[in-house]
Amino acid sequence: MTVLPPAGTISFARGIPSPDMFPIEALAESARRAVENDGRVALNYGPPAGFAPLREWLGARHNVAPERVLVTPGSMIALNFVVTHAFRDGGTAIVEAPTYDRMLLALAAAGAGVVTVDNTAGGLDLNRLRELAAGNPKPKLLYLLPTFQNPTGRTLTLEQRRALVTVALEHELLVFEDDPYGLLRIEGEPQPYVHELLREAGGDHLAVFASSFSKSVAPGLRVGYLVLPETLVAPIEAIAMRTYVSPPLLPQAQLLDFVTSDAFGPHLESLASFLGPRRDALLERLEADLSGLARWTRPEGGYFLWLDLPREVDTEELNAAATAVGVSFVPGTGFFGGGRGGNTARLSFSYPSVDEIREGARRLTELVRETLER
Amino acid sequence: MTVLPPAGTISFARGIPSPDMFPIEALAESARRAVENDGRVALNYGPPAGFAPLREWLGARHNVAPERVLVTPGSMIALNFVVTHAFRDGGTAIVEAPTYDRMLLALAAAGAGVVTVDNTAGGLDLNRLRELAAGNPKPKLLYLLPTFQNPTGRTLTLEQRRALVTVALEHELLVFEDDPYGLLRIEGEPQPYVHELLREAGGDHLAVFASSFSKSVAPGLRVGYLVLPETLVAPIEAIAMRTYVSPPLLPQAQLLDFVTSDAFGPHLESLASFLGPRRDALLERLEADLSGLARWTRPEGGYFLWLDLPREVDTEELNAAATAVGVSFVPGTGFFGGGRGGNTARLSFSYPSVDEIREGARRLTELVRETLER
Repeated sequence: MTVLPPAGTISFARGIPSPDMFPIEALAESARRAVENDGRVALNYGPPAGFAPLREWLGARHNVAPERVLVTPGSMIALNFVVTHAFRDGGTAIVEAPTYDRMLLALAAAGAGVVTVDNTAGGLDLNRLRELAAGNPKPKLLYLLPTFQNPTGRTLTLEQRRALVTVALEHELLVFEDDPYGLLRIEGEPQPYVHELLREAGGDHLAVFASSFSKSVAPGLRVGYLVLPETLVAPIEAIAMRTYVSPPLLPQAQLLDFVTSDAFGPHLESLASFLGPRRDALLERLEADLSGLARWTRPEGGYFLWLDLPREVDTEELNAAATAVGVSFVPGTGFFGGGRGGNTARLSFSYPSVDEIREGARRLTELVRETLER
Repeated sequence: MTVLPPAGTISFARGIPSPDMFPIEALAESARRAVENDGRVALNYGPPAGFAPLREWLGARHNVAPERVLVTPGSMIALNFVVTHAFRDGGTAIVEAPTYDRMLLALAAAGAGVVTVDNTAGGLDLNRLRELAAGNPKPKLLYLLPTFQNPTGRTLTLEQRRALVTVALEHELLVFEDDPYGLLRIEGEPQPYVHELLREAGGDHLAVFASSFSKSVAPGLRVGYLVLPETLVAPIEAIAMRTYVSPPLLPQAQLLDFVTSDAFGPHLESLASFLGPRRDALLERLEADLSGLARWTRPEGGYFLWLDLPREVDTEELNAAATAVGVSFVPGTGFFGGGRGGNTARLSFSYPSVDEIREGARRLTELVRETLER
């Protein structure tokens, strides 16, 4: 049953940025400059792989030839391209449990089989990963969100990253690293990318990387990208070509103008200052009200926190009750391959204000306590 | 064998606008205003069907509810969405011969069968259309470019439009009208859209319309759209959602700002003034050099002219020879379902200058005459 939220619902469900996170003035200037400076190229059709100067900038950033960068209208379509190609003849993907729900839908739509590796407070289940990677037939790829994961907010440690790189190399397993949130660090030290570790260890041909400026700049520009192994460039470009001829080049020129301007660095700092107090407000309420009753992650960045409730709580039911009192979240089951996670929830802290987060978390923890006391 | 064109090649091959056709200053202002006025919405994620105010504007323009308008990043992906849905369980499409080559690729990729109706100087072969529409199993759709067709530049007469509407109604045949060039009229009176005629005759449920601002404003914005029958809205929106979550909203806001500004009307007039002399320069050269030797269309607008040479000319070979002397075009075979059109060619007059067109056409007609004299 769908319960419509009352007006003024506080949403921990929407995994989207608050409009207050957009650098409106700077982007308005970048928009104007992109047309004026690059319009004769960026207003036209172009290569299916995107705006050449942005590919160059991204190539330099990731230390690869620009030819290996494919810029796409958002990263979801990039994930779809990789999945379409990798599973054109069937096969199985290894994913984390839980993982990005839309990737599970994309894999299902492509007819791919899915096997899961638990990613818990203790990290990725490396024994399980080794077992699956050694499987016959060989899995086609391992899909991972190593940093500020959607949905858990977890970040893999350096040791875990190194260990999974070793597994990938041993079994020639393609590693598809998805990193939409990495630039949104609130605290702590960045870990090296998995694709960089793979490359250093001689596994450049096994590394596919996807990212996006939807979370770090603005989703409405739809600028995502892939860094591909050389062998995948031609087939994925062919899919892009037949899908849309060329992507929207003007937003790519606009994005490049912004990220190469003096405004980009301070903007990323402002995002950390924006997200930090929101995460903290949520953590404070959980600690005050649910200590000893539930567990949750403490993300070092990104949009999401993961709530792990006692087994007797059904978060689908909890969300229906929560919606009725004006707060909503995403129940965890959709992030698992099937059946599991019925007592888990994803809470996004990117959209509501600090005050809304305090009030929303109060309503939510009250409901949880009532449910547990019944 | 691929022959690389010499520097300074004059291209009748590129079906893309000249950068001189872009209203750079007006679009720069629209870009800035779109971020400033609509940024808090248009910079975010949004509905899979696109920026709501643009859907409203397009709905009013086509006299349908905005819910029936799906705005997409260019119209190629919109064609792919319709094809993906229509042929999900197989089936056959009726297309013109010749027709848009990328649509033939999209149909092939979707596993659709293709049957053709000749579209010649005499118009659409309506007897053949009646025969195919009555076929068993019933064809899934008829795909048509009624105005300034790619590749021929031909426009269906009102009588032809009415006749095909009658066929569609009689056989409950879905008509997919693709109109990327309609706003680029150099001369003559506009014909009513096929989907309007269908609607007036009670066939609203049979009409799918696709268009784009790639030719009338700028491809780099990638703003295309579909007007869908009510029954197709939900399934096509679902495909858009799983493909890219939401399309680039900012270019849609920017496009809306431009087309609702005072600049849009004069801009369309300027495109007619731009394309007219180019078409005429090409026609003059053909008339001077090839009268009695070949036939060609006289398009009332759009980008393309179709050249029909004597059977002994192989336009693949001619294009190789032409490329060697610095002029290129697209041989016609790719626009047919297979095998036919070996003596035909598509010449685009949107990209070169008038002087380049004169010189390019001179080189080309000289080669044709040499070929015929051998």
